[in-house]
Amino acid sequence: MLVEKVMQAIRDVPDFPKPGILFKDITPIMMNPQLSEEILVALEEKYRNKGIDKIAGIESRGFLFGYPLAIRLGIPFILIRKQGKLPYNKSSLEYDLEYGTSTIEMHTDAIGAGDRVLIHDDLLATGGSAAAAAQLIKQSGGEIAGFDFLVQLDFLQGQEKLAPYSPSIQAIVNY
Amino acid sequence: MLVEKVMQAIRDVPDFPKPGILFKDITPIMMNPQLSEEILVALEEKYRNKGIDKIAGIESRGFLFGYPLAIRLGIPFILIRKQGKLPYNKSSLEYDLEYGTSTIEMHTDAIGAGDRVLIHDDLLATGGSAAAAAQLIKQSGGEIAGFDFLVQLDFLQGQEKLAPYSPSIQAIVNY
Repeated sequence: MLVEKVMQAIRDVPDFPKPGILFKDITPIMMNPQLSEEILVALEEKYRNKGIDKIAGIESRGFLFGYPLAIRLGIPFILIRKQGKLPYNKSSLEYDLEYGTSTIEMHTDAIGAGDRVLIHDDLLATGGSAAAAAQLIKQSGGEIAGFDFLVQLDFLQGQEKLAPYSPSIQAIVNY
Repeated sequence: MLVEKVMQAIRDVPDFPKPGILFKDITPIMMNPQLSEEILVALEEKYRNKGIDKIAGIESRGFLFGYPLAIRLGIPFILIRKQGKLPYNKSSLEYDLEYGTSTIEMHTDAIGAGDRVLIHDDLLATGGSAAAAAQLIKQSGGEIAGFDFLVQLDFLQGQEKLAPYSPSIQAIVNY
């Protein structure tokens, strides 16, 4: 079963990025091309013929599966990046972190009116950056087709923050 | 021809990230899944059966083609990340930028002794980060199978900085 394989591959790293946090390290998945291929095949099956026009990946781990999935589905991939990285005309959104704020950006020509966009990232924690990405896409006239993650940390209740944007919040592995 | 298609897709953005720089924006390639697939097919043909054990991608645009190429070649993908992002045991390398320094990191268990590693990034400019990645991999006991880029800016002579690590420096498009 894919779920078990992914769970076995993910490495728990205690006290990262700070004491008391048990970090879910997905890099062993990248070291395993067969498992990576299985994940992509599963994602392609899940999202094919679901009326998704584009995939938006959140920098930088959201690029890892987001872009190859978009290529397989034959749809455009949008880069949601941290402030100052995208060179062309762009829209920005500042959102709150636990301490301070962060800003994400997207090229304005990445979204057309009514585009149904799937937002992808590697991990759903509190949902701050995914919710910010959804707001940015909606501000540009797009619609949220759903949220997709490799890993979802249910106890942080990010799904409650995302539910107003789309009822479709999917992950391969839930903790 | 693939070269012409990629050149047509790349967008020149003047004065980014600062006045006088003509930035090569590759994000229109990500918006074009057919072209993206063609690029991956070409890279797969170029590197299949060349004795490459692993691909190392430089955060974050090096993840875009680096990881799907590794999956297609059936080999592990190593993430070379900016300081503070990788959670597990890691080695670091500080290198000089035009002003100041930057530090990249890699998980120490990503490299085995004698691994032949292809280093991939989207663009070769002065070669600072690719040379730093090569040093990091060599320090960990790996060998440099080559450098691969989407775009190479010949006039910045990054190839001269990389040549001591490997004679194989390839790009789809050279300016």
